[in-house]
Amino acid sequence: MNNLMQHTIEMIKPLDEEAMAKARARQNTLTKPRGSLGILEELSIQLAGIQGKPIPQITHKAIITMAGDHGVVAEKVGNWPQEVTTQMVANFLGGGAGINVIARQVDARVVVVDMGVATELKPNHRLLSRKIGFGTQNMALGPAMTGEQAVKTVESGIEIVTAEIAKGLDIAGTGDMGIGNTTASAAICAIITSQPVAEVTGRGTGLSDEQLAHKVAVINRALAVNHPDPAQPLDVLAKVGGFEIGGLVGVMLGAAANRTPVVIDGFISGAAALIAIALAPTLKDYLIPAHLSAESGHRLLLEHPGLSPLLNLDMRLGEGTGAALGIFLAETATKILAEMTTFAEAGVSEGDETGN
Amino acid sequence: MNNLMQHTIEMIKPLDEEAMAKARARQNTLTKPRGSLGILEELSIQLAGIQGKPIPQITHKAIITMAGDHGVVAEKVGNWPQEVTTQMVANFLGGGAGINVIARQVDARVVVVDMGVATELKPNHRLLSRKIGFGTQNMALGPAMTGEQAVKTVESGIEIVTAEIAKGLDIAGTGDMGIGNTTASAAICAIITSQPVAEVTGRGTGLSDEQLAHKVAVINRALAVNHPDPAQPLDVLAKVGGFEIGGLVGVMLGAAANRTPVVIDGFISGAAALIAIALAPTLKDYLIPAHLSAESGHRLLLEHPGLSPLLNLDMRLGEGTGAALGIFLAETATKILAEMTTFAEAGVSEGDETGN
Repeated sequence: MNNLMQHTIEMIKPLDEEAMAKARARQNTLTKPRGSLGILEELSIQLAGIQGKPIPQITHKAIITMAGDHGVVAEKVGNWPQEVTTQMVANFLGGGAGINVIARQVDARVVVVDMGVATELKPNHRLLSRKIGFGTQNMALGPAMTGEQAVKTVESGIEIVTAEIAKGLDIAGTGDMGIGNTTASAAICAIITSQPVAEVTGRGTGLSDEQLAHKVAVINRALAVNHPDPAQPLDVLAKVGGFEIGGLVGVMLGAAANRTPVVIDGFISGAAALIAIALAPTLKDYLIPAHLSAESGHRLLLEHPGLSPLLNLDMRLGEGTGAALGIFLAETATKILAEMTTFAEAGVSEGDETGN
Repeated sequence: MNNLMQHTIEMIKPLDEEAMAKARARQNTLTKPRGSLGILEELSIQLAGIQGKPIPQITHKAIITMAGDHGVVAEKVGNWPQEVTTQMVANFLGGGAGINVIARQVDARVVVVDMGVATELKPNHRLLSRKIGFGTQNMALGPAMTGEQAVKTVESGIEIVTAEIAKGLDIAGTGDMGIGNTTASAAICAIITSQPVAEVTGRGTGLSDEQLAHKVAVINRALAVNHPDPAQPLDVLAKVGGFEIGGLVGVMLGAAANRTPVVIDGFISGAAALIAIALAPTLKDYLIPAHLSAESGHRLLLEHPGLSPLLNLDMRLGEGTGAALGIFLAETATKILAEMTTFAEAGVSEGDETGN
């Protein structure tokens, strides 16, 4: 087992119960019926526990969007050409993609990482390069990557988020780009949740029934060829994962080790979360699932570790677009806790909520 | 029938189909799989139709929070004292209530209106006074207000939103404050949806089972005493409504007449929407239902006119807090349509989404 990864996993501690108790007590003094801000109240308490502060604060925000290519596209599992991964990285750097627009709206920076795009990308001061390879191998024929590469993806994610935290980061969102990555994510999901492949495989960017059946068959072949061990999360990552998925596992581990909340995006981030939680179960409490994706396997994926999504807006773009919306809700939750007046301060009478 | 109200209703026109078609066409050229931003895409198209612009714009935002008291509190339908309405208006003006915090977060101004609080409020340059009376009459004994007062509440709402639009307003959110107003809203909902009172009556700020049964009995008594005519929306408003509810009806009518979208908050705003839609069915397309409230009748209320809420965060505070979150999503939707690059601009290849 790798040193940086093992050390990071050991650094992940349970939430701060005292900070959470104080946050909950304060919520109950604010000028509103108890619990009437619902999930926003719960979120503020979770954030208090993560940051270890009775009144958590979110000022610096980042979406970490990781890109990688997938050898399994040779099996024609999707209907978009592989070059789109490269083109979309350029679009992220130019500021014109969906994630750029929504990140600007929530005042989050977008950190774009090349974890293993299939082409040599032009150097750009806004692009972090951690290229593990020029796309993974075709998992239908053998492992997507070596065990060493799998560890390296996770380490890279840890290093990247740790560097971002050093610059100032109160909350991270995860995002992905990679043609073929719903196939890798469905494979991970099937293995870790023990669900049939057909149950967790969706239409990605828009497949027909026939194409969907083919995608399911390819994933079943990959599982038969590789025999991934569900009890060994890194083995699953290596056999059927992706470089960007491994990177996101590292982001989640590194953020939790530094008491930083992570808002997870849709299906691909969810697959990374399954691996991260399998490596470090305590990590789960540091995750905020932004939304229920329209990708059909996402509901089963989130149910497995018991994660409840904040939003259900029928989105399936990835990139971190859902995560950015989740960051807005998290920040709003902290502002409510910090800025609302108490009954005593405002001179407002309290209701009798004991039912008497 | 009143002149201002009738004239306003006649000004409400269908959505601009041409602007919607252009917005939809543009969505399909943006660098993402078609439809992958789900409800945000649909919202941008609705906003185009409302504003009559292929690329709608949201810069100036306001929550209009209307306060009023309810004579039915004499029947002990809730567990908070009536003085809280007055105290919370002061809290809104001081900037420390939930709506103030969330409105700041989405950069919306809060317009606080006294539609009929039971006390004489201190003058404040930030408070609009349209006091129709010192609280409504007890609807369990007779009509909550006269027919003339009902018209006056609606007129006041029209005038207030029209003045706000004149100052610059691209989207309005509705909010309410009034101890007892879930009782009035449940009564309106039961009449207009023809549902049994028990099905649409909830626990408000936190009632016990016994208190809830009492609240249902009081509403049934009010319906028996007043015989409101479901085919006459203003009669329903007068018999069992509230001054702030009538004001919100006017806000919705006045906004739609001026092609301004209205984000409706929870149960009380929803009751106002039922009356507004009954007065002007075309108005429905101008409404954006922000969230599904935890107040138990809200689902049935929204289903009646066929409105789908954007969010489900288990909130039940009112004040416009849900509407403010909805405004954030609406603004985000317009930014996506305006700011994302097209496939041609970004040099990104398009996928084959025909299923071939």
